[in-house]
Amino acid sequence: MGKLHVGIVGATGYTGEELVRILSRHPNVEVAYVSGKEDRSERIQDIFPYLKHTLDLKCNAFSADEAIKKTDLVFLSLPHTLSMQSAPLFLKAGKKVIDISADYRLRDPKTYEKFYKTAHTDLKNLAGAVYGLPELAKIKAAKLVANPGCYPTGSILGLAPGLAKGIFNPNSIQIDAKSGVTGAGRKADKALHFSEVNESVKAYKLFEHQHVPEIDQALSGVSKKPVSVVFVPHLIPVNRGILSTIYVKLAKKTNTEKLLAVYKKFYAREPFVKVYDAGLLPEIKNVAHTNFCDIGLKVNEEKNFAVIVTAIDNLGKGAAGQAVENMNIMCGFPETAGLSH
Amino acid sequence: MGKLHVGIVGATGYTGEELVRILSRHPNVEVAYVSGKEDRSERIQDIFPYLKHTLDLKCNAFSADEAIKKTDLVFLSLPHTLSMQSAPLFLKAGKKVIDISADYRLRDPKTYEKFYKTAHTDLKNLAGAVYGLPELAKIKAAKLVANPGCYPTGSILGLAPGLAKGIFNPNSIQIDAKSGVTGAGRKADKALHFSEVNESVKAYKLFEHQHVPEIDQALSGVSKKPVSVVFVPHLIPVNRGILSTIYVKLAKKTNTEKLLAVYKKFYAREPFVKVYDAGLLPEIKNVAHTNFCDIGLKVNEEKNFAVIVTAIDNLGKGAAGQAVENMNIMCGFPETAGLSH
Amino acid sequence: MGKLHVGIVGATGYTGEELVRILSRHPNVEVAYVSGKEDRSERIQDIFPYLKHTLDLKCNAFSADEAIKKTDLVFLSLPHTLSMQSAPLFLKAGKKVIDISADYRLRDPKTYEKFYKTAHTDLKNLAGAVYGLPELAKIKAAKLVANPGCYPTGSILGLAPGLAKGIFNPNSIQIDAKSGVTGAGRKADKALHFSEVNESVKAYKLFEHQHVPEIDQALSGVSKKPVSVVFVPHLIPVNRGILSTIYVKLAKKTNTEKLLAVYKKFYAREPFVKVYDAGLLPEIKNVAHTNFCDIGLKVNEEKNFAVIVTAIDNLGKGAAGQAVENMNIMCGFPETAGLSH
Amino acid sequence: MGKLHVGIVGATGYTGEELVRILSRHPNVEVAYVSGKEDRSERIQDIFPYLKHTLDLKCNAFSADEAIKKTDLVFLSLPHTLSMQSAPLFLKAGKKVIDISADYRLRDPKTYEKFYKTAHTDLKNLAGAVYGLPELAKIKAAKLVANPGCYPTGSILGLAPGLAKGIFNPNSIQIDAKSGVTGAGRKADKALHFSEVNESVKAYKLFEHQHVPEIDQALSGVSKKPVSVVFVPHLIPVNRGILSTIYVKLAKKTNTEKLLAVYKKFYAREPFVKVYDAGLLPEIKNVAHTNFCDIGLKVNEEKNFAVIVTAIDNLGKGAAGQAVENMNIMCGFPETAGLSH
Repeated sequence: MGKLHVGIVGATGYTGEELVRILSRHPNVEVAYVSGKEDRSERIQDIFPYLKHTLDLKCNAFSADEAIKKTDLVFLSLPHTLSMQSAPLFLKAGKKVIDISADYRLRDPKTYEKFYKTAHTDLKNLAGAVYGLPELAKIKAAKLVANPGCYPTGSILGLAPGLAKGIFNPNSIQIDAKSGVTGAGRKADKALHFSEVNESVKAYKLFEHQHVPEIDQALSGVSKKPVSVVFVPHLIPVNRGILSTIYVKLAKKTNTEKLLAVYKKFYAREPFVKVYDAGLLPEIKNVAHTNFCDIGLKVNEEKNFAVIVTAIDNLGKGAAGQAVENMNIMCGFPETAGLSH
Repeated sequence: MGKLHVGIVGATGYTGEELVRILSRHPNVEVAYVSGKEDRSERIQDIFPYLKHTLDLKCNAFSADEAIKKTDLVFLSLPHTLSMQSAPLFLKAGKKVIDISADYRLRDPKTYEKFYKTAHTDLKNLAGAVYGLPELAKIKAAKLVANPGCYPTGSILGLAPGLAKGIFNPNSIQIDAKSGVTGAGRKADKALHFSEVNESVKAYKLFEHQHVPEIDQALSGVSKKPVSVVFVPHLIPVNRGILSTIYVKLAKKTNTEKLLAVYKKFYAREPFVKVYDAGLLPEIKNVAHTNFCDIGLKVNEEKNFAVIVTAIDNLGKGAAGQAVENMNIMCGFPETAGLSH
Repeated sequence: MGKLHVGIVGATGYTGEELVRILSRHPNVEVAYVSGKEDRSERIQDIFPYLKHTLDLKCNAFSADEAIKKTDLVFLSLPHTLSMQSAPLFLKAGKKVIDISADYRLRDPKTYEKFYKTAHTDLKNLAGAVYGLPELAKIKAAKLVANPGCYPTGSILGLAPGLAKGIFNPNSIQIDAKSGVTGAGRKADKALHFSEVNESVKAYKLFEHQHVPEIDQALSGVSKKPVSVVFVPHLIPVNRGILSTIYVKLAKKTNTEKLLAVYKKFYAREPFVKVYDAGLLPEIKNVAHTNFCDIGLKVNEEKNFAVIVTAIDNLGKGAAGQAVENMNIMCGFPETAGLSH
Repeated sequence: MGKLHVGIVGATGYTGEELVRILSRHPNVEVAYVSGKEDRSERIQDIFPYLKHTLDLKCNAFSADEAIKKTDLVFLSLPHTLSMQSAPLFLKAGKKVIDISADYRLRDPKTYEKFYKTAHTDLKNLAGAVYGLPELAKIKAAKLVANPGCYPTGSILGLAPGLAKGIFNPNSIQIDAKSGVTGAGRKADKALHFSEVNESVKAYKLFEHQHVPEIDQALSGVSKKPVSVVFVPHLIPVNRGILSTIYVKLAKKTNTEKLLAVYKKFYAREPFVKVYDAGLLPEIKNVAHTNFCDIGLKVNEEKNFAVIVTAIDNLGKGAAGQAVENMNIMCGFPETAGLSH
C-alpha cells in the first residue's frame, strides 16, 4: 500500500518545524508538500539542516493548487484567520484538513469574534469540524479537525475525569499555567529577546487569554454543566513545555488514591496520557520532545480540595504531536505511529 | 559616631553571601565577623572575589565567643535548629540577633515540631521574638527578629491589604509560587544538577511545605480570622526570584481600580513595596537584586474573583535584604540604608 | 530474521539514558538487558517515564552472567576502569562489546595510566580494540569498539581532512571547546548546582584534559606526523552539545572555497558529517538530539590561517549516537538505522 | 561642594540602563538628564521600576540644548555614527563627553570607514579623543573619552602585560571570546529570540568583527610592534559577561608563576584588575554585575605556549562601569566611587 501524501502549510514556525520533524520519519506517510511564509524558495534541508537523510523538498510560498495536487491530507499551521481562508479549498477538493490555528475550535462564531477580533468567514465547515482531543472526541470520521490549543490540552486533560464523575465543583476551578517560549511563536519581538525572558517569569492576560473559551467549552461538555475557569498563563525561561497547576474544590469526598484510580480508569486506553502514582508529580523534562500528557494529583481531605498537575510539550501533545495523533486516527494508522520518541 | 559592628554566622551559603555583599557596602555598619560551615580558614575575599575593595576578613568555623567579642548584632544564616542553639548565647551577652532560619518564626512550638521534626529548645526567647515583616510588625524595639521565609514574604504582602479590609474571603485562598534555584540552598544534590533543573519546571510539597504555617499565622493575624491557605511551590530555572500568583474569592464587591487604591494606601509609607497601576504586572527581572516586593492585581467582577501577582528576590526581600531592612529599623538607621540598589 | 539482542550496562547516567532512548526504537534490535548503578530493582519505565510504549524491562544492579545470557552485544556505559573489568567477560563469551568509557581508547597503556591514574589491566583486549570513529576507522570486523570521547569526536572530525591533505601545520593547533553540562555526568556536585553553572562560563583543565592524548593519537594517525594540540575545554549553561572552535596555521596556501571542497570530498560518503557552505557556521541547536557533526570554516588568506567550527551533541555523535552507529556497522545494519531523528 | 551634573543620552538600551543604575547611586554625581530613543516622554522610574527611591526624572527624546543646559558631563550611549553628530555640540559648549559608541575609538578614519561603513564626520575631535582604558591610558586631562568596546576590554587587558614585556610572540595571538546576549543590544530580532539563543552556542563574524581593529590598535601600542590578532566571538546563553580565552606563543621562556608575577606587578595599582593565583581561573559569575576584569593564566613550558583567560561583565567593565571609572578619573573622584558593588 502506498504512503499517505501529506502537506504542511506553514512549515517554518516552531509548530510547522515540529510537524516536519515528526512526519519526515513517520512510517505511514510521505511529506509531499511544505510551504513557508517567505516568498523565496528554499530546500527544507537548508532551513532545518538535521533533515539531511530524511527529507529533500522545496519550501516555497503557499499555493493551494499545488498543495491540493500533491497531497491527500494537509496540516494548516497558520496564524488565526488565515486557516479559514484556505481550509474550504482543501475540503472542497476532497482533502482531509487538520487545522492547528484556532479558526475551527470554538463552536460559537460570536465567541470567536470576541476573542479573535474577526468575524468567522467559514460557518459551513465550522459546523462540521471536530475538536481534536482524542481522549474526549471521536476523530475517526472527521474531515476537518480543529487541533486544540496548547494550554487547553494540558488543562482539559487534567480536569476531565474529575468533572465527568462529578467529583469537582465546576464553579471553583483555577488554572495556573507555565509555558515555554516557543509557545509565543518564532517572531522578532523585543519582549521575546533572550535577555528579557531569561532569569525572569511573568504572568500575562489574566482572565482573558483567548484559550479560555476553548477550555470552558470543552469542560462544559465533559461536566454537562456550564464551566467557567479562572486561567492565568505565565511565560517561563524554557524552550518547550507547559506545566499546569490546577486548583479545584471537591463536590464529593474523596482521597488521593481514590481520585487517582478514577483518573487511571478514565485514561486506561489512552496511549498518551500517563497518570502518576501517589507521591509523584509530572515535570516538564519528563514530557519534552514527546506526545505525552503526564498527570499527577493530591487531595487535601481536610480542606476538601485537590491540586492536579499536568505536563505536556507545547509543540508535542500541545500542537504538532497531537495533530499527528489525530491524523493517525483519521487515517486508520496505529495511534502511536511516528510518535514513539 | 562609630559604625555598628555586625557579624554574619553562616556567610558561605547563598543568603550569607548576599548579606556579605549588602553589608560590606552599607554606610552605617562594619562587617566585623564572618563564619562559614567549613573547618578551614579562608579570607572572605578568596571565597567571593568581588569583595576585593570592600571587605578583608578571615572566614573561620563558627565560634560564639569570638563573634560575641567582635559584634553588636549578628545575622544567623544557619540551617533550622542550629539557630536556636546559638541565638540564646548572643542574646544573653546583650547582642541583637536577626535569625534567618525558621527557628523563631512560629509562635506555637508544637507547629514548629510538626513541620521541622524537632522539639523547640529555646521557648524563652521564642516568646519574645518579633516576626520581621516590617510592613506588618513593629521591629524597632526587637532584640530578636525572626526574619520571614522567602515564600511567606511574597505571599503575605500580596494578601495583607485585602484581608485586613475584609475584601477577600479568607477561606478561599490559593497561592501558586514559582521560585528560583538559590532558594533551595547551595548544596550538592542530584536534583539540583544544572541539567535536571534547566529546561524544566516542577511543583513540589503540595499542601505541606513548611512555610504554610508561617503564612497562615501571619494572615490570620492580619484578617483577625483563622486563615488556612492552599500553597503550591514550584522550582523554575532561574537563579533568583519568586513570582507568586494568588487566587482569591471576593467577600465584598470591588473592581481593579478600587482594590489597587486600597493596596496603595495600605503600603503608602512602605519604601519597599511597589503597587503597580492597572494593566501592569510584576516580573521577576524587575525585582532581582533588589529589596522590593512588586505587586499587581486584577479583579474579575463577573466571577467575583481577584488574582494578585507579587514578585520578590528570594535572596533580597525574601532573605538577606529584608534582614538588613530589619537591622536598619532596630538600629535607627534609615530603612533603605544600604538597600538602594 | 530475529532482532539483535543488546544490553546496556550503566543505563541510568545521561549517556546510558540516551542509549536506551535510541535503542528502544531502533528497527533492528531488541533491548534485552539494562542495568543501573543502584542496588534496587526498578522498571526502566519508572526511571524514564517516556518509555511507556517502547520498553518494559527491569533495571537491576549489574550481573555479567545475566547480561551474557540475554544479549548478543553490550554497550558499557560505565566509569573508567570499570569497563576493563567486565569487557573481557563478554568478549570471552563471544559477545560484541562497545565500550563508551576511555578504557580501550589509548593504544599506549602508559599514557592511559598517566591520565587515568590506574594501570591498565586488560592489555590483551586493548591491543585488538578498534577506535570507533567510523569516518576514520574500519569498524565492520571489530569485536571490541572503543567509542570515542565527546571532545575528541568534535575535534578530530574538524581537523582530519586538512591534516590528511597536509594543508594544516600540525604544530600549530588550538582547540577551544564549549560543552553542555550533561558532559559532566549525572552526579551530586556543588560545582554542577544549577545556580553555579547558570549565567556563567568557565574554562577548566587547561592543557591537561584526559581527552588530549586521545585527540593527539588520532590526529597523529591521520597526518602521519606527531600532533600535539593545545586544548581548552569550557563549561557552558546548556544541557547538550559541544561547539569546538579550532585555530590552525596553514602549511599550504588555500582559500575558504577550496578548503571546503577538500572537506566535502573527504566526508562525501559519510552520512553523519555535514560540511556547511561558505558563509555558514554550525550552531549547537542544529545538532542537538541528533547524531550529526556539523562543520563550517573560514580561511584568512592574509594571515595564512583557518578557523574551523564543529558542532555535535555530546550525548549523540559524542557518545550514545556514535555507539549505535558503530553497532550498525559491526552488525551489518544500515549505518543510519535508528539515528534518523 | 556640589555634585557633578551628568546626563545619559540613550538611557533605555542595556548599557544606558546600567549607567542609570550605577550613576543614580554614585556619591559624587547627580543624574540631571536622561533621554531615550522613543518619542514619548516617560518617567525613568516607570521604565526601570527599581529606581523608585533613587531617581525621579523624565526621559524624553534627545535634545542637545536641554542636555547642555542641565549637565556638566554627558555619557553618549548611542548607536555608532550618531555619537559623532552630537559629541561636537557638547564639547563646544565646554562639557566633558564619554562616548560609549565606536565613533572615537579608531585613530585612523579610514579604518573606521572600512569597519563601520561610513565616513567619519568629526576628524577634529577624533584627533583629541583619549581611548579610555584606564589601565593603559592617561584619562585625567581628557575632554572626550572613547570608551572601549566590550570585547577589546577583555582581550587587551589579558594581553597587555605579556606583550609589554616582550614575553608573547605578537604574530601568534588567537582570541576566543564568549559573550552574553545583552552585548547584542536590546532590539527586536528573530536571531535573539529566547528559543533561538537558549540551549545553543554559535560563533560569528570570524576574523572580521568590528572590534578587531580596536584590539590591534591598542595591542600594537602596548607592544611597540604591529599586532594583528585572530579574533572569534561567540554568543552564549547568558545575560551578562564575556569570557575570553587567549592563545599565545611565547617569545621568551617563562612559567606560570613567573608570568603571573609579571601580570600582578603590571596591574598592582589597578583597582579593577584581579590576577588570580596559579591553579585558579576566572568565571563569568565572579565578575557579573561588577567593574572587575579577572585574569588567570597557565603556561605550558613544553609547548612554549600560554593560555590566558579573562572575565568581565560586558555591561560593567565592558561598557557602563568602565565609563563611570573614566568619569571618576576625569573628575578627580576616587577611581572606585560608585563601583564597589
